[in-house]
Amino acid sequence: MDSARFLEWLHREIPLTAAMQVDRVEFDGESLSLHAPLAPNLNDKGTGFAGSTSGLATLSGWCVITLWLASRNIDADVMIARSEIEYLAPLTQDLKTWVTLPDNESLLNFEHRLMERGRARLSLTVVLGEDKNSPVLKLTGDYAAKLR
Amino acid sequence: MDSARFLEWLHREIPLTAAMQVDRVEFDGESLSLHAPLAPNLNDKGTGFAGSTSGLATLSGWCVITLWLASRNIDADVMIARSEIEYLAPLTQDLKTWVTLPDNESLLNFEHRLMERGRARLSLTVVLGEDKNSPVLKLTGDYAAKLR
Repeated sequence: MDSARFLEWLHREIPLTAAMQVDRVEFDGESLSLHAPLAPNLNDKGTGFAGSTSGLATLSGWCVITLWLASRNIDADVMIARSEIEYLAPLTQDLKTWVTLPDNESLLNFEHRLMERGRARLSLTVVLGEDKNSPVLKLTGDYAAKLR
Repeated sequence: MDSARFLEWLHREIPLTAAMQVDRVEFDGESLSLHAPLAPNLNDKGTGFAGSTSGLATLSGWCVITLWLASRNIDADVMIARSEIEYLAPLTQDLKTWVTLPDNESLLNFEHRLMERGRARLSLTVVLGEDKNSPVLKLTGDYAAKLR
């Protein structure tokens, strides 16, 4: 994956990601991290706006599945189906997220279901904060993929 | 409440609401509705970006409690603490949300706890879609208020 090209595509296709100034994507094939500065994502209390933090976490899960499918040359749409979000503390730093794909067996099951039935779901946990071990937000999301 | 002044305050204090072009707020003391056009909130599939739809729903619950507290002359910060979001269908229209405050007894209990202990929580359900009876998104959120 070419990060700069992916970010450019993201900003063009999803204009709110440009407004949020999402400026870094890191994906090593297993884990993904997104970054955005705090300033465009502030709330009235001078901390991270919940719409921005939850939005970036939701987007992170979507990105990691989208990029993994692309790496497998699978042409599918990915959508969030359900999520549960815990807001653990106010965010006073830049927005940074982490999400890791499940183990290989779960991933191959997901791919198998997707190729067999044309659709499949994957659950992911995304955290956001300064340090991934003490996050200020935790999202558990069910993502649905559908072959194009 | 002066809607135009509230929107102006929102756009200034939470810049992402300006980027989302949130352009209508209606509050009658019990129910609140927010509106934003689809264009700035599109995703790569030409439907509503989940970060925008969930963000507007999260904001709606925050607005209805904030405006209700202001109408009671209670000076408190409001924050989302937890939410569960169901994405029921893609959004192909403008973003429009609805949220209604709980019955009077629950509201007075909330106010009582807030004044006694300095903090209290309220659960709300927010729907988003073209028609509030067949929403494309449903959010159940626990909001925390804290006296300033």
